[in-house]
Amino acid sequence: MRTKKYVLSDQDMPRQWYNIMADLPNGMEPPLHPGTGQPCGPEDLAPIFPMNLIEQEVSTQRWIDIPEEILEKYAIWRPSPLYRAYSLEKALDTPAKIFFKNEGVSPAGSHKPNTAIAQAYYNKMAGTKKITTETGAGQWGSALSMCCSFFGIECKVFMVKISYNQKPYRRLMMETWGANCTASPSTETAAGRSILEKYPDSPGSLGMAISEAVEEAVSDENTKYALGSVLNHVMIHQSIIGLEAKKQMEMAGAYPDVIIGSAGGGSNFAGLSFPFALDKINGKEIDIIAVEPTSCPTLTRGPFAYDFGDTVQMTPMLPMHTLGHNFVPAPIHAGGLRYHGMAPLVSQLVLDGIIRAESIHQMETFKAGITFARSEGYIPAPECNHAIAIT
Amino acid sequence: MRTKKYVLSDQDMPRQWYNIMADLPNGMEPPLHPGTGQPCGPEDLAPIFPMNLIEQEVSTQRWIDIPEEILEKYAIWRPSPLYRAYSLEKALDTPAKIFFKNEGVSPAGSHKPNTAIAQAYYNKMAGTKKITTETGAGQWGSALSMCCSFFGIECKVFMVKISYNQKPYRRLMMETWGANCTASPSTETAAGRSILEKYPDSPGSLGMAISEAVEEAVSDENTKYALGSVLNHVMIHQSIIGLEAKKQMEMAGAYPDVIIGSAGGGSNFAGLSFPFALDKINGKEIDIIAVEPTSCPTLTRGPFAYDFGDTVQMTPMLPMHTLGHNFVPAPIHAGGLRYHGMAPLVSQLVLDGIIRAESIHQMETFKAGITFARSEGYIPAPECNHAIAIT
Repeated sequence: MRTKKYVLSDQDMPRQWYNIMADLPNGMEPPLHPGTGQPCGPEDLAPIFPMNLIEQEVSTQRWIDIPEEILEKYAIWRPSPLYRAYSLEKALDTPAKIFFKNEGVSPAGSHKPNTAIAQAYYNKMAGTKKITTETGAGQWGSALSMCCSFFGIECKVFMVKISYNQKPYRRLMMETWGANCTASPSTETAAGRSILEKYPDSPGSLGMAISEAVEEAVSDENTKYALGSVLNHVMIHQSIIGLEAKKQMEMAGAYPDVIIGSAGGGSNFAGLSFPFALDKINGKEIDIIAVEPTSCPTLTRGPFAYDFGDTVQMTPMLPMHTLGHNFVPAPIHAGGLRYHGMAPLVSQLVLDGIIRAESIHQMETFKAGITFARSEGYIPAPECNHAIAIT
Repeated sequence: MRTKKYVLSDQDMPRQWYNIMADLPNGMEPPLHPGTGQPCGPEDLAPIFPMNLIEQEVSTQRWIDIPEEILEKYAIWRPSPLYRAYSLEKALDTPAKIFFKNEGVSPAGSHKPNTAIAQAYYNKMAGTKKITTETGAGQWGSALSMCCSFFGIECKVFMVKISYNQKPYRRLMMETWGANCTASPSTETAAGRSILEKYPDSPGSLGMAISEAVEEAVSDENTKYALGSVLNHVMIHQSIIGLEAKKQMEMAGAYPDVIIGSAGGGSNFAGLSFPFALDKINGKEIDIIAVEPTSCPTLTRGPFAYDFGDTVQMTPMLPMHTLGHNFVPAPIHAGGLRYHGMAPLVSQLVLDGIIRAESIHQMETFKAGITFARSEGYIPAPECNHAIAIT
């Protein structure tokens, strides 16, 4: 019997995360303070994040040890399987060998718990009692809800209103794990009320929901904020995907010519690709492609510029590809790909020519998802359909 | 790091199914023809099932080889992981070691593809062009839809109306895999129309949906019917769960004192427990418990008797614990546990004292499911919550 999937045991799990900050060919610009416009110091971020995560955010250490407590929680779903897509290859009649990494085996159904568990853990260590966050499609909100429940931390999620209405079961999942989930923009924050005053029918956006979550976090010293993508420490935590994939490709006796991932804020894409990008920086020839929707074309159409992460300009300004912090994307189904900005690390690597971007229409991605479901079995998320369509 | 889960590679997969028919201490009564009341021969079943599956249905061979084509499809999700529930043990403050087998890793999200892939394969070999079936919660219908798409067989699913309304995403999954899904009772069959005439507001039942699916199958020689539980060949296919679990318990250096599974038609329960029941028949001391809802108490309250599998009396009569083929269960959320009958093999083993049954209220099972979700992460299905609540 030929091998369909490459599985690693709990004991084979990587014990360190990879931080691509250590290997950027041209370095990176610092975040700027939203008030002064000067580079942010760690103390500027302290009202929002605990100091142990801020240290990771600015770290240039290449390898970072994964604490034992996090490894034990990772073992609930990690190492995740790497598959050879024999049936999809046949359906496409291609000589290419196609592999895919299945992050859907996590209890929350996505890659998001890879960083949610780390953020919940570091917050617990720092004494945080409550975490606020935003969520698009609901994947990040449910991942954080679950991980907060593991560590006994209160969790409050602002969910983009159009997704809140499109994906009601996601709210139910968050509540099952004990979190509180509110449609954003809401009347619970000054930011939300100011947006609703101008646009009472707003479908919401990640930028708006971030404003609400940050506002609630800074108003209480025992409450911190957590972000599921974009930031450097999130990219570090997600690197475990690519580190496992490297081991598994070795088991398969293969090495990729092309790496493809869907990119909203950038964490799914970075998690898989950065460990391979290291090889590219060191001379390997690999085509690394980030795929986004044509209706939210951050990398393919947005300029590289300093911009706010949120709508009401409370967050530090980040150097990134951006469509502007006031951009309200069309309510497509891939709620996870509707963020106006892109992770600074992903944006920098596009500038440096290490990776490149493509965009694709929603209808085409659905077609690709159906081909995948009828050949490989798994029904991919709308977000993943973008990567599959480009394949 | 302590081991959280026991994983097997594709190559470790069992190569044979186990058939407990070979080891029944007191044998089993045969099915009876619905018209004559005489024991059914294979030819009586031929309008409904292909002959290769009928041969398995009546087989007393202990070990049955799994065809290579089925093993290759199994490898999409099998071997499934066995977990040690450390966090649940802690939450319950119990000295017991609790293990659970996660069949939710299959693309359809349940154990049902274990037999769906086998039934689709044997039908394909026999030249079947179309398969009809019924589904309760939607798990069986979606599993069969997926497996029919793998082999290019048309698939038609009659879904119990209350579930069709409660679980709309299940219909979407079936359609993604290319199947046609209709709420039952429907106006598409004589059986459905006769039920609707008497009870226009009927929430439906598995018995009614079976009548509709069987009627559509017998009306065309290229169409066959498939059942997701109850029958002997289904129990055989599901035995792979318990066979894997035995290997994995050995990896864990442990052997179970108690085995628990939720039981509707019996296939999930039988799949896990029958390979261990063999050990019990051979002298091991194990407590084997089937758990069902108090609102559909087939094993705990239903007599052991010959009864029809469907409402309008088209199927052979089976010797089983039953609430009567006209029983319409309350519309609880565990749609998979609402069948009026129980697999003859499970029923026989209860008679023989090899296994025993318990029943539990829906509200208690929800509470148990939340405890499980907040400790182990995974949100269990309403069906599985029954097994967890008894634990």
